[in-house]
Amino acid sequence: MSTVFCDMTISLDGFAAGPNQRLDTPFGDGATGTLPRWMLHAAEENAVERGRITDAGAFIMGRNMFDPGRGGWDLEWTGWWGAEPPYHAPVFVLTHHERADLELEGGTTFHFVTGGITEALDRAKAAAGDRAVSIAGGATTANQFLAAGLIDELRLHVVPIVLGRGERLFTDVGQFNLTPIEVRHTALATHLRYTIGS
Amino acid sequence: MSTVFCDMTISLDGFAAGPNQRLDTPFGDGATGTLPRWMLHAAEENAVERGRITDAGAFIMGRNMFDPGRGGWDLEWTGWWGAEPPYHAPVFVLTHHERADLELEGGTTFHFVTGGITEALDRAKAAAGDRAVSIAGGATTANQFLAAGLIDELRLHVVPIVLGRGERLFTDVGQFNLTPIEVRHTALATHLRYTIGS
Repeated sequence: MSTVFCDMTISLDGFAAGPNQRLDTPFGDGATGTLPRWMLHAAEENAVERGRITDAGAFIMGRNMFDPGRGGWDLEWTGWWGAEPPYHAPVFVLTHHERADLELEGGTTFHFVTGGITEALDRAKAAAGDRAVSIAGGATTANQFLAAGLIDELRLHVVPIVLGRGERLFTDVGQFNLTPIEVRHTALATHLRYTIGS
Repeated sequence: MSTVFCDMTISLDGFAAGPNQRLDTPFGDGATGTLPRWMLHAAEENAVERGRITDAGAFIMGRNMFDPGRGGWDLEWTGWWGAEPPYHAPVFVLTHHERADLELEGGTTFHFVTGGITEALDRAKAAAGDRAVSIAGGATTANQFLAAGLIDELRLHVVPIVLGRGERLFTDVGQFNLTPIEVRHTALATHLRYTIGS
């Protein structure tokens, strides 16, 4: 049975993105230059945590993570990740707009799912086999899965910045306990791992 | 010159207290049994972080931390801490209502300050001499000092629970960077230490 994990990079005050996420500012105002920095510019120091993010047999992401700030589909847009995305596995994109599968190099195929988180999780688990399923974000998607109690392991990468506004993790997810597993400070992010439940 | 530190116990989603803080539920609904547990019931495992909280030459707290949920003063009320509070130093309580100094055993004297955070900090620094000044809470008071840029070191004790509602740290404090110093998971709290600024 696949475990389900979720990696989220957030500010110290809990924002996964600033306001105004667009193609040129994918993490929003005030956050695009800061939140993803630990992954992009300190790869060695953060190699373990970075490696775990893509260590899954299938991925689920929100449409806004695939293609932020747009209405319908621009079929020219094939994601942020170039010809060979780092997933090397099926990626199920939650959306209200149907779109044909998009197969890229290296084993990554984007499937566009209109049946909500339950359909996405069923399909991801079937695709992952014995490997884990990753809830890849963004915050809205993570919050939906947290609210439904469908995440086993939550990995927070807390960037030492207070943003004050944006899209918040832990919105409308109810109350629950977690169990700390592992923690590590680096200059650009503090890595906190929890299982959900006590 | 005194450094100014602030210890805050918060839930993973950033709440320093639940709703409805009263004398019988000082941390509010859903939080009174959970947030302070690391200090009360795991004293040995958390001895270092617990000891640092009161290692200051003077303290500042909000009136709601001294006496939650009331309007005027009940002069019978002398705080939560019994005859000999753990501060052993002057404690400056922010309030809109004047009250005479309250001297308890062991060197703790509560002074009631009506001139706001600047007056409180001036008096606390004068009293502390070379020792540190502690901003003891609650969240409203911590947020006032954070917004004014008056805290040097922030120590968060993150309890592995998602509360979903209550009084939030980092409300209306603007944007700023921090520098991670130290981090440690224990079963009941993750201790994060930051200096403010980058």
